[in-house]
Amino acid sequence: MHVLVIGAAGMVGAKLIARLCTDGRLGRQEIKRLTRHDIVIAPPPPASLFAIDTFASDLSLPGEAERLLAGRPDVIFHLAAIVSGEAEADFDKGYRINLDGTRLLFDAIRKLGNYTPRLVFTSSIAVFGAPFPDQIGDEFFTTPLTSYGTQKAICELLLSDYSRRGFIDGVGLRFPTICVRPGKPNLAASGFFSGIIREPLAGQEAILPVPDDVRHWHASPRAAVQFLVHAATLDTSLLGSRRNVTLPGISCTVGEQIEALRKVAGEQAVRRIRREPNAAIMKIVAGWPRNFSAKRGTELGFRAEASFEEIIRVHIEDELGSRIST
Amino acid sequence: MHVLVIGAAGMVGAKLIARLCTDGRLGRQEIKRLTRHDIVIAPPPPASLFAIDTFASDLSLPGEAERLLAGRPDVIFHLAAIVSGEAEADFDKGYRINLDGTRLLFDAIRKLGNYTPRLVFTSSIAVFGAPFPDQIGDEFFTTPLTSYGTQKAICELLLSDYSRRGFIDGVGLRFPTICVRPGKPNLAASGFFSGIIREPLAGQEAILPVPDDVRHWHASPRAAVQFLVHAATLDTSLLGSRRNVTLPGISCTVGEQIEALRKVAGEQAVRRIRREPNAAIMKIVAGWPRNFSAKRGTELGFRAEASFEEIIRVHIEDELGSRIST
Repeated sequence: MHVLVIGAAGMVGAKLIARLCTDGRLGRQEIKRLTRHDIVIAPPPPASLFAIDTFASDLSLPGEAERLLAGRPDVIFHLAAIVSGEAEADFDKGYRINLDGTRLLFDAIRKLGNYTPRLVFTSSIAVFGAPFPDQIGDEFFTTPLTSYGTQKAICELLLSDYSRRGFIDGVGLRFPTICVRPGKPNLAASGFFSGIIREPLAGQEAILPVPDDVRHWHASPRAAVQFLVHAATLDTSLLGSRRNVTLPGISCTVGEQIEALRKVAGEQAVRRIRREPNAAIMKIVAGWPRNFSAKRGTELGFRAEASFEEIIRVHIEDELGSRIST
Repeated sequence: MHVLVIGAAGMVGAKLIARLCTDGRLGRQEIKRLTRHDIVIAPPPPASLFAIDTFASDLSLPGEAERLLAGRPDVIFHLAAIVSGEAEADFDKGYRINLDGTRLLFDAIRKLGNYTPRLVFTSSIAVFGAPFPDQIGDEFFTTPLTSYGTQKAICELLLSDYSRRGFIDGVGLRFPTICVRPGKPNLAASGFFSGIIREPLAGQEAILPVPDDVRHWHASPRAAVQFLVHAATLDTSLLGSRRNVTLPGISCTVGEQIEALRKVAGEQAVRRIRREPNAAIMKIVAGWPRNFSAKRGTELGFRAEASFEEIIRVHIEDELGSRIST
C-alpha cells in the first residue's frame, strides 16, 4: 500500500506519519511506501520499514497535483491548509491554497481514470457559524463566518460530489479544536485553550483572555491521528452520499479545563494561569461552536477522549515523557 | 439606476425584464439603463422608457465579467446556469459555467473596488438531498445529490463570504420548481409537473409518469419574478450573515394538482392526462424535496401563491390571455 500525506510538515501530519511508521500498516494492509508533501520540506521522518519520499511544492500551481499522484497512492491524507487567521488576512491566498489547491488535487485524480483512492480530508468546525444551538446536531447547516470556514465547507461539497461520481472515495472530517497543542504559544485566537494547560505543566505562566464559563470543543492530537487512521480504513458504504462527518470531542468550559488541570497537576499548576481579559479575543470566541452531538461520528466508530482530564494525561504521556514540572 | 440581468434569454430572465420594462423602476429607483446578458443573443426586449444593451458571451471566459461590469451596474441579477441534467451529463461544463462563471463574476466585482452592487443569485432546492424530513426547515443542511446542486450550494457559500467581506451585497434565492412553465414540453425529469396542467389547458394530452401521491414544491413564473424584484429591493441588514433564503412555495401532491385543474377547467381537461408510469422518473423524483417551512423567507416578505389553484389561474392569465381550450 502506498500512502500520500499532504500537509506532512504540520503538527498533525507529523504525528500521523510517526504513527504510520510505528504501525507499518494501515488497517490490514502493509505500507510499502509513504510520500510526504508540504509547501516546505518536512523534517526527517522517524525510522520505518518502508520507503519514504519527501516533496515540497505549491499544490495550487498547475501540474503539481499530477506529479504527486504519479505513483497512484492508495490512500491520500489531505491535511494541508492556510490557517484561519491567514485566510482572513489574505483573501486570494486562502482561496488559492484552501479551495483551488484541493480542487486541483481532486481533478488530477479524476483525470487519471481507473483510479479511486481513499481520500481523507480535514475539514473543521469552522464550517459552522453563530447563531447556533448549544449542541449542534449532525444535520445543522453550514454558515461559516470566516473565509477559512467557507473554503472548508466548499471542499466538503466537492468531496461529496466527486465521491458520488466515483472519482474519489472521500471522507471529510470536521476536527474539533486540537488540544493540548504541543510546542510554543502561537498567535491563533484559540491558542489559550492549549496554553492554559501546556504552559503550567511546563512550569510556565499562561494567560487566560476569556471568562471561565466559555465552552469549547476539544480532542487531543492523539485522537486526531486516530480519527485519520479510522477514516482511512472505514467502510465508506456506511456513509452513503453524506461524506462529511462531525467528529466526537469533549465539550467543556474553561473552568472545567482548569479543574481537570488541578486534579492532574495540583494547585501549583493552576496558580500559573493569569487572567487577563481581552475583549477582542472574547468577541472572536463568542462566534465559535461550543458543543456537538456528534452522534453519527460516534456511530461510525470515531473516538475522542472521555474527559478533559484524559486529554491532559494524553499530553503528559505523548509530549512530556509522562513527567510534569511541579 | 443601472440593472444587469445575466441569463436574460431564459424564461425567468425574459419575464423579469418584461416586468422591469413595465414598471420602469426597481423599488423607489427609476431604471435608466438595463444590460441584458446571456450566452446567446436574447430576443428583442419589450418597449421601455430606458436604454437597453444586449450582450452575448461566455461568462466563464477570462475578461468577460469585467466587460459586463464596465458600467458598474447597481443591481445584478445572476440567473444564468447550465441546467441540472446537462451539468450531470457534462461534468466539466457544469463546473465551468455554474461555479467558475459565478466566481469570476464575484471576483471581477471585488477587484473593481469601491463598488458593492446588490447581487441577486438564483439558487435552487437542489442544494438539498434525500433523506430529509417531510418538511425541510430553514437550518437544514445542504447535501446535494447532483453536481448542479453542488455548484449552487458552493455559490451560496461564496455569495455569503463575499457579502460578509463587503465585496457584494448578495441575496441567494432557493427557487421552488417553477410551475406552470410555459412553452413546449422539455426533457427535464420535472417537466410533467407543468405538463399535466399546461397541455390539458391547451387542449392537448399530457403524460403523467408518477403516482398521484408524489408531493412537490411549486411557485409560478410570476411569483419567481416577484421574488427577484423583492430580493433586489430588500433591506439586506435583515439577513445578517445568512444571505441565502429558502423561498416560500406551494407543497402539493400530483393528485392535488389534478384536483385544482378539475376545479379551474373541468373534467374534460383532467381527462387529457394519461397515466404512463415511468420507473426511471419515479426514482429521480423520489430524491427531491417535498415541502419546506420557508418561515424565514416568508418573514422576509417573499410571497408565493396561496394555493395550486392560484398557480393555474396565474398561468391562464399570463400565458393564455385568460382563455382556456375546453
